[in-house]
Amino acid sequence: MTQGRFITFEGGEGAGKSTQVALLVDRLRARGLEVVRTREPGGSEGAEEIRAIALNGDAGRWSPMTETMLMFAARSDHLDKTIRPALAAGRWVVCDRFADSSRAYQGAGGGTPGEFIESLDAAVVGETQPDLTLIFDLPVEVGLERAFGRGLFETRFESKGVAFHERLRARFLQIAEEKAERCVVIDAVGDIETIEARVWAAVEARLL
Amino acid sequence: MTQGRFITFEGGEGAGKSTQVALLVDRLRARGLEVVRTREPGGSEGAEEIRAIALNGDAGRWSPMTETMLMFAARSDHLDKTIRPALAAGRWVVCDRFADSSRAYQGAGGGTPGEFIESLDAAVVGETQPDLTLIFDLPVEVGLERAFGRGLFETRFESKGVAFHERLRARFLQIAEEKAERCVVIDAVGDIETIEARVWAAVEARLL
Repeated sequence: MTQGRFITFEGGEGAGKSTQVALLVDRLRARGLEVVRTREPGGSEGAEEIRAIALNGDAGRWSPMTETMLMFAARSDHLDKTIRPALAAGRWVVCDRFADSSRAYQGAGGGTPGEFIESLDAAVVGETQPDLTLIFDLPVEVGLERAFGRGLFETRFESKGVAFHERLRARFLQIAEEKAERCVVIDAVGDIETIEARVWAAVEARLL
Repeated sequence: MTQGRFITFEGGEGAGKSTQVALLVDRLRARGLEVVRTREPGGSEGAEEIRAIALNGDAGRWSPMTETMLMFAARSDHLDKTIRPALAAGRWVVCDRFADSSRAYQGAGGGTPGEFIESLDAAVVGETQPDLTLIFDLPVEVGLERAFGRGLFETRFESKGVAFHERLRARFLQIAEEKAERCVVIDAVGDIETIEARVWAAVEARLL
């Protein structure tokens, strides 16, 4: 039994990540691979309970530090119950958001110190780093317009203003440079088929 | 306005901490001090929600790492919403369990690395260290008999067996040595009045 591969999708709001996660999962399954599709925060029974606490309520309900701890608590359970068992059983895992979202949202966005987030990542994620991270990039105004336009407000982060989202975008692009061995930036401007082709090119080049 | 003082009660199960917290709070109030009585996990609206998730369910529901993250998430909110505002307003805070319980339960008991717990403490608790920590010490068998006898099972930790509780006791006594500037060991064998006198002697000597 070979170890499965771990792919994460990252980026700001309205980038079309969820649509592309679904398309990639279909395509991998069509090749005969066993694939687990999951998301963060959440992805296990306990982590979904933590998600409900973390994302509900007013935008200022939790301090950035508390939010950081809740996200890594959920991540720890998600790794224990879903991600590590799937990888150990040879399955591929495709996850909509993972630790880079904490680096961007709680770190660059919220102000939790970057070195503290790295120490949490080392302790909680440890060796279970993604094999491939696709960072969906697009202009902030385009992403927010898409997010509002579709009437889906997954999280209260969408209401935090353009400057906040510019910090997230810059941080995601910085992560792509710092961790180039696992990251590929996907230009998320274009129609669904165009972006699907970009995603598949990255997966083929890096993992197949 | 002078800063208030922060007193924590620590120790294993059945040590009589909650009874003594109430007696100390009464005594401090009788001296004209404004006192906030609180507890962990919990002590703020958000932290009580996290407590309900953290303590419910089977003993093996969360890994020690996830449990550690949940406890520090709750602690972070408790500090933000209850402890720091009270101290800043000149009130005294008396808290039933605090960060030393994470050192003992999730660290010595559960196996989360001690240096990782210290890095969480530095980031989450930071400068808000207790001015006085009373570590209630008694033989494990006596404490567990008391805890079972009273029919109160605050947490599922009571069911983890004598060896687990011996590790906690040893860790609490080690903390008292390592952090002698803020810790006093209270011999918790004796009647309520005897122990109340020991607590008061420690508070008078260290803080009044």
